Amino acid sequence: MRMREFKLIEKASKIFAVERDDILIAAGEHDAAIVKIGGKNVVLTTDNLHEKADFPEGMFPEEMGHMALAVNLSDLAACGAKPMHFLYTITIRDGIDDEFFERILDGMQKLAKKYDVAVVGGDIDFGDELYISGFALGVAQRIVTQANAKVGDGVYLTGLLGKAQLSLEQLFSGKKREEIAYPQSLFTPEPRINEGLELAKHANSMTDISDSLAISLNLIAEKSNVSIVLDYDLLPLDHLTEFVSLHKALELFLYAGGDYELVYTSKKKSYGFEIGEVVEGEGVWMKKGDKIDKIEFRGYSHL
Amino acid sequence: MRMREFKLIEKASKIFAVERDDILIAAGEHDAAIVKIGGKNVVLTTDNLHEKADFPEGMFPEEMGHMALAVNLSDLAACGAKPMHFLYTITIRDGIDDEFFERILDGMQKLAKKYDVAVVGGDIDFGDELYISGFALGVAQRIVTQANAKVGDGVYLTGLLGKAQLSLEQLFSGKKREEIAYPQSLFTPEPRINEGLELAKHANSMTDISDSLAISLNLIAEKSNVSIVLDYDLLPLDHLTEFVSLHKALELFLYAGGDYELVYTSKKKSYGFEIGEVVEGEGVWMKKGDKIDKIEFRGYSHL
Repeated sequence: MRMREFKLIEKASKIFAVERDDILIAAGEHDAAIVKIGGKNVVLTTDNLHEKADFPEGMFPEEMGHMALAVNLSDLAACGAKPMHFLYTITIRDGIDDEFFERILDGMQKLAKKYDVAVVGGDIDFGDELYISGFALGVAQRIVTQANAKVGDGVYLTGLLGKAQLSLEQLFSGKKREEIAYPQSLFTPEPRINEGLELAKHANSMTDISDSLAISLNLIAEKSNVSIVLDYDLLPLDHLTEFVSLHKALELFLYAGGDYELVYTSKKKSYGFEIGEVVEGEGVWMKKGDKIDKIEFRGYSHL
Repeated sequence: MRMREFKLIEKASKIFAVERDDILIAAGEHDAAIVKIGGKNVVLTTDNLHEKADFPEGMFPEEMGHMALAVNLSDLAACGAKPMHFLYTITIRDGIDDEFFERILDGMQKLAKKYDVAVVGGDIDFGDELYISGFALGVAQRIVTQANAKVGDGVYLTGLLGKAQLSLEQLFSGKKREEIAYPQSLFTPEPRINEGLELAKHANSMTDISDSLAISLNLIAEKSNVSIVLDYDLLPLDHLTEFVSLHKALELFLYAGGDYELVYTSKKKSYGFEIGEVVEGEGVWMKKGDKIDKIEFRGYSHL
């Protein structure tokens, strides 16, 4: 499905191609669009969640509201934008009463308040499945995209990866939500807003890890015309090998999504830890002793 | 459903209540939110459509794309805003192939080009039903809302009402799409963008007719603390009585939605025709000879 999505996004980019002075970054080129309004760099992004694909069983309504906002704020963070306004649409199905609805909104508003985001609009309708679409608007001082990584940059991550997918798989294997390893990563992931704002001051390229580190790095490498080489010895895997094999841990770290961390390339580190470097060439690779392996463009879906 | 929706929107407005200098009009108060960015009045709106509730049988994919954009542009028109940018989310179900998807986007882009709207972003996922959410951003010179109708204003409509619902009911009763009275009103309604831009220069209040004239006028009366009196003799019904009884025609004109026309109050008319006046008091009424009837806050859903 993920591959079909990328193919369709490419088609969409062609259909909607537009040259206009106020459009700095358009659809399909980055995590979000960037347009000029009243002299400001305005970042626009949208993400759609629905129950069967995106909400693990047992998720509380507050967490659904949190996630619908968080997934959009993460896209703004990836552009180093300060989030300003949010709008949502909700499709309510049978069995969702007014209290459940209010709890979704409470979760959304709690996260909104934390980052001073104003929820200024919404649309409510009724259908067979719970859907929450979100739209977020932010303002960026300096524009950072996936497209400007420089040879000689270090590659940095703001936090550990694989925690959300590990937790999800534990849930699938029969564990209760109190028993899984990283419930916060799965149910209330934290968008890296403050980190994104700081990193935008010096990063050459940046993106969030919505699908997988492998996909994010391949996008940066491709759009920047560079190669990225990860150093196996730098990858932190202990938080995963505590629960799974080393092989599985590496798979989760490289190819799982849902952790909402940022990956950036820069001449300096201001958050997180180094995992590799930007070199001449193409593609993404991992160096382990004498061996070098290609990191493919793939992820696996969150649910 | 419509009444539950209004109740939930009220709850949402309380949960998301916020006082901030950059928020001129917030959620639930109007057709769209209006915020200040870089000195501009930026109008933000979102609307969600899905197959079972919003797309009549036999609708072409291009028309679905048209409608997803049109419904959002109509909200911008209602605020007298020039539409600038659009983002969408699409949930694709089994049976929707790449060609069908592209035809949806083609329909969207055709309408976008007509009004110089840039489609700058989107999100694609997969589920059990076709969903299209839209988010539109526009810029308004002068802010017109539902809240400022003045005693002595005339009440004007930009076009005829009841055509979409009449056509839909003909479709339900077994007519083919070539045989229904007003296919364009049903399948490719035209948002009143240019009219909205002109009307915003002098209208005291304005809104679009998304649900029904009755609901739109009741919202204006309530938010402006005035009463609105329609003159039965001014209501154009011939385009409906050609097909249905006078009683049914009046019901369609007052209580049906889907026609995307604007209703406005002003000291002068610059588009459309007069249907009544703004007076002191409360509620919405219709004068017919010596009789005066209350126009209730109700509509009936599009499908």
